[in-house]
Amino acid sequence: MKPLEWIDGKLKFLDQTKLPLEEFFCETDDVDFVAEAIKRLAIRGAPLIGIAAAYGVALASLSLNHSMMEEARAHLVSAIDLLASTRPTAINLFWALERQRRVMDVWQADSITDLQNNLLDEAKRIHQEDAEMCERISSFGIELLHNDCSILTHCNTGALATGGRGTAVGIISKAWELGRLKRVYIDETRPLLQGARLTAWEMKQAKIPATLIVDNVAAVLMQQRKIDIVVVGADRISMNGDVANKVGTYSLAVLAKYHGIPFYVAAPVSTIDVQMSTGKDIPLEERDAGEVTESFGKRTAPESMNVYSPAFDVTPHEFVTAIVTDQGVHRPPFSVSLKRLNLRRERAS
Amino acid sequence: MKPLEWIDGKLKFLDQTKLPLEEFFCETDDVDFVAEAIKRLAIRGAPLIGIAAAYGVALASLSLNHSMMEEARAHLVSAIDLLASTRPTAINLFWALERQRRVMDVWQADSITDLQNNLLDEAKRIHQEDAEMCERISSFGIELLHNDCSILTHCNTGALATGGRGTAVGIISKAWELGRLKRVYIDETRPLLQGARLTAWEMKQAKIPATLIVDNVAAVLMQQRKIDIVVVGADRISMNGDVANKVGTYSLAVLAKYHGIPFYVAAPVSTIDVQMSTGKDIPLEERDAGEVTESFGKRTAPESMNVYSPAFDVTPHEFVTAIVTDQGVHRPPFSVSLKRLNLRRERAS
Repeated sequence: MKPLEWIDGKLKFLDQTKLPLEEFFCETDDVDFVAEAIKRLAIRGAPLIGIAAAYGVALASLSLNHSMMEEARAHLVSAIDLLASTRPTAINLFWALERQRRVMDVWQADSITDLQNNLLDEAKRIHQEDAEMCERISSFGIELLHNDCSILTHCNTGALATGGRGTAVGIISKAWELGRLKRVYIDETRPLLQGARLTAWEMKQAKIPATLIVDNVAAVLMQQRKIDIVVVGADRISMNGDVANKVGTYSLAVLAKYHGIPFYVAAPVSTIDVQMSTGKDIPLEERDAGEVTESFGKRTAPESMNVYSPAFDVTPHEFVTAIVTDQGVHRPPFSVSLKRLNLRRERAS
Repeated sequence: MKPLEWIDGKLKFLDQTKLPLEEFFCETDDVDFVAEAIKRLAIRGAPLIGIAAAYGVALASLSLNHSMMEEARAHLVSAIDLLASTRPTAINLFWALERQRRVMDVWQADSITDLQNNLLDEAKRIHQEDAEMCERISSFGIELLHNDCSILTHCNTGALATGGRGTAVGIISKAWELGRLKRVYIDETRPLLQGARLTAWEMKQAKIPATLIVDNVAAVLMQQRKIDIVVVGADRISMNGDVANKVGTYSLAVLAKYHGIPFYVAAPVSTIDVQMSTGKDIPLEERDAGEVTESFGKRTAPESMNVYSPAFDVTPHEFVTAIVTDQGVHRPPFSVSLKRLNLRRERAS
């Protein structure tokens, strides 16, 4: 099951808002439609958002023709700006768009076809690289697990969120293949239930022993000594190791620390924001009240109720036992270990 | 808005499963219907369950007549057993049933009418006493608050959960009346959303400034220093101060401790189980998977997904800053302070 595929000049993607009830695919050649899909979380997961945005720029270039040499750059910049405006927190989005901007920058304004091909090639490269990064993250990650390990995870970080087998879920599925996993416990992840709708669905498909819990139960399982480690993904990591991720991550990190449970973060190096020294400045998206008060098609709170619904939170580095990237396992102090990485300096302005 | 009322030989109650969409009242003279209502959470909240059960026994006695002097006790015992089997955790249920059992025990088997009147009087007394206990809890509780206080609460502990103004919510509404409350933050309380459906509704009715959050956001608010104190109710308190309460309470308690935020528990003394020395042995109800996977009338997790859904958790006493009862504010060590209380020794066997 591929959440996203380039087929015959179109982007085909799974509408993840319809899971687990329906496996519904969309096909589009329209960058506006891609931006909209990212915005409404039909395409989601930090790495996958980046991949989709890169394809989005490639799609935008397809509407250019040879008589439009002059306006080509402005046309693409407006597509990049549109895609960049969809969601503020996951840095992979800006990183992927910056890679496409560079493709455009080095273009000699000689052939529209070249530009189109180069943008598509770069998108495919980003996609393929992400799949390879997932493999490497998974291989590094399983070294952290003892045998018969019970793992708690949050949100969705699997094949649905990436170009490959996933980040945190990549480690979990690899552990299962190698016989090291006892059980995975999945936070349902309110408000949008990515754990219940997506990770549970992925675990079912892969026949991995999994138990779904409401987020409130994570602490109870820790109290019962049923969790050996916590592994989550990341939407942005600052250079000191602070981690922005799906709301609920900070809560888990505090609980894990209190219970003496290792807390691991798995993400490709593209998630590390070289321009951000601490997590304090990471922009955190706020979502609509409706996702809390009527997210399942039924009103569950009084009309016009005041709601505070941040989509992400920032876990300070002191809660993070290690960060697993495609370049290895990084331990504190992260301000030292992350600096040693071979980090690309691409970043949307 | 009374969640429960005795009117002309019938028990009238608000079906809380339909809130906030509908204020739907039921009337019944059938103890089976009362038991069913408690089981399916149409009547819920530890104190209110006790009150409803007491009225349930009174209802059961109404089907007796003067020719049934011999079988009266067996008839009532079976009603008591039925009501006792509805939910295992809240001790107020067993405490109220034990009070009715005593009424039955002292009955001279001379007049069915006397028995009926005595049981109804006792139920009304339990109801009235609970209202008074709420007032006293609220008065003691506000002494813990500084001015302009922001309070986080969990589940529902208001008028809908008690015979009066509530326990934790009683303190909150009293604080508002006295001008000491800045804002109340309400955990939605998955899986059954008592915070979103019931507490938010109560706060709207009372025009108290309130913000609803998904449970995952509690830690974020604490990190942002937006919470001054946490106040929750209790379903059962052991003699060492361990607190069984709605699942999510333990999580909040750990988070509050980490952030240096006082964590208060408000409950009538009938919530204290004199026969339980620690919380380890408190029976914790497990609920159906369906409440997690399709609680909003829409399936949100794969079919036949394995789910672990305890309705309650136990917060060890070392996390509790103080317990507020109708007899005062009790501080650690609770094994000393709770022993000093004037506790009734009633308890269903």
